Amino acid sequence: MSASHDGAVDPRLSINQATIKHADLPTALRVTAEAGVQAIGLWREPVQEVGLATAASMLSDSGLRFTTHCRSGFFTMPEGPARRASLADNRVAIEEAATLAAAGAEGSTAILVLVAGGLPDGSRDLAGARERVRDAIGELVPDAAAAGVTLAIEPLHPMYATDRCVVSTLGQALDIAADFDPRVVGATVDTFHIFWDPDVLAQISRAGREGRIATYQVCDWKTPLPADVLLSRHYPGDGVIDLSTLTAAVIATGYDRDIEVEIFNADIWAADAASVVRRTADAFATTISPSLARAGGSARAD
Amino acid sequence: MSASHDGAVDPRLSINQATIKHADLPTALRVTAEAGVQAIGLWREPVQEVGLATAASMLSDSGLRFTTHCRSGFFTMPEGPARRASLADNRVAIEEAATLAAAGAEGSTAILVLVAGGLPDGSRDLAGARERVRDAIGELVPDAAAAGVTLAIEPLHPMYATDRCVVSTLGQALDIAADFDPRVVGATVDTFHIFWDPDVLAQISRAGREGRIATYQVCDWKTPLPADVLLSRHYPGDGVIDLSTLTAAVIATGYDRDIEVEIFNADIWAADAASVVRRTADAFATTISPSLARAGGSARAD
Repeated sequence: MSASHDGAVDPRLSINQATIKHADLPTALRVTAEAGVQAIGLWREPVQEVGLATAASMLSDSGLRFTTHCRSGFFTMPEGPARRASLADNRVAIEEAATLAAAGAEGSTAILVLVAGGLPDGSRDLAGARERVRDAIGELVPDAAAAGVTLAIEPLHPMYATDRCVVSTLGQALDIAADFDPRVVGATVDTFHIFWDPDVLAQISRAGREGRIATYQVCDWKTPLPADVLLSRHYPGDGVIDLSTLTAAVIATGYDRDIEVEIFNADIWAADAASVVRRTADAFATTISPSLARAGGSARAD
Repeated sequence: MSASHDGAVDPRLSINQATIKHADLPTALRVTAEAGVQAIGLWREPVQEVGLATAASMLSDSGLRFTTHCRSGFFTMPEGPARRASLADNRVAIEEAATLAAAGAEGSTAILVLVAGGLPDGSRDLAGARERVRDAIGELVPDAAAAGVTLAIEPLHPMYATDRCVVSTLGQALDIAADFDPRVVGATVDTFHIFWDPDVLAQISRAGREGRIATYQVCDWKTPLPADVLLSRHYPGDGVIDLSTLTAAVIATGYDRDIEVEIFNADIWAADAASVVRRTADAFATTISPSLARAGGSARAD
């Protein structure tokens, strides 16, 4: 049942580079490919560290599929130079995502993950910040459409609502996305952020029906939370999220693309990158692959 | 505009005893009354420390109104001795709430706050735990009705969903309450737990329409969160919650009873109880009273 028994790696696993945060781009690509993983999601900082053209070339040479570019957004501020600078930077991120997707192996996807940002300094106006997210996405849609990039609005757990992301539920992300073409604006469905939602299964189903599941990301939640709650993500299976049910719900919508594991965790970041990738592949095989196999979704045994 | 300017205390302010956690019952009653506050919400442990009859007598002597009894619940476990023990203890809490409400000054309310509990050990089944909350409340309703007590289901912030309270949104609390008489089952509306919800204003309005706002509690949220996220509550006005808008929404439903300030915060707990009560009264006057005055809701200047 689980691929881990014979050491095989699920063909739909993608390593999100944040999981091996301290590896530079060449190292991240190498350890991912050497582990037999077929896909990777990249982060902007390590890409920019080597430059976009070099990053694209390295990605191409790796033979890996490219699944998402992480991350842009952070456009909750009112009109002014800071907002203009953010939107300009988001346009750069759109170009990066398009370039990397073109450089990745067949089956790569041009998806830019958007984290909205928190309340501007001194503000208590969540509703206003949320409206400005919608406005910013509206401004970026023509650029994303021209570049063939899908903007993937990521709802973050409500504990991050004021300092990181005012988009707090999948339903809210879908309400924002509803104004736009689903080829251009979708949602990031991340188990960690939405598993607690009493409405999560209905909203996953709705996201599929509306063609909005741009990417599916998995990791786990457990308590007590660490002192820095940003680093409270765990290997799939190490916590209490019902990953089988959530994954089955995503797969039931027809989602047939790669699935990223994205973990922010100080202990995991301190470990050797190659061993983290192997451990991630094993965790994925145990916790996610069975749900794919049941749905006939792991058929891509290429 | 604000009562703090002339030192007056808002007649609708109630001090939730958790705000002065380390004060025993006589001290809590004394510092609350001496500050000119007219109402108090009590916790079970300090009441049980002196015994219910003594507590009722002390409360009566204090001249304070009694607003809520905190807290019971914790009934997400499957059938078995632990569940039976929890339900038996909830029945004791119902009797305590009724006794204390009868001992409090005119205008006291017999409200028992219910915190559902988290996932049972080893379980990942949030949906099942949530169903068992509904079942438990169903078992308690006849006892509460007979005692004249309103069970106030409290949705807690989603960061507590797995280890403390599987009821995570006001909408979810109202969905559970919908099966029961609104005189017997309502909701606790606490700004800290629900302010982030994109649907919060609609759900407050719904709660009022359905007669379910058993109690309204206020405190504030700010980041970074402390290492123990349970202790991340602040004086009203010290954080980023839009208390004016939320309070106005609650008052607009016709809510005309006392408003508790309930704060869990290590620094506040370490301070002198009398000064904490005075500081709470000032914060309330600045952040909450104006919303009451605008609505004509602070008219009880008794």
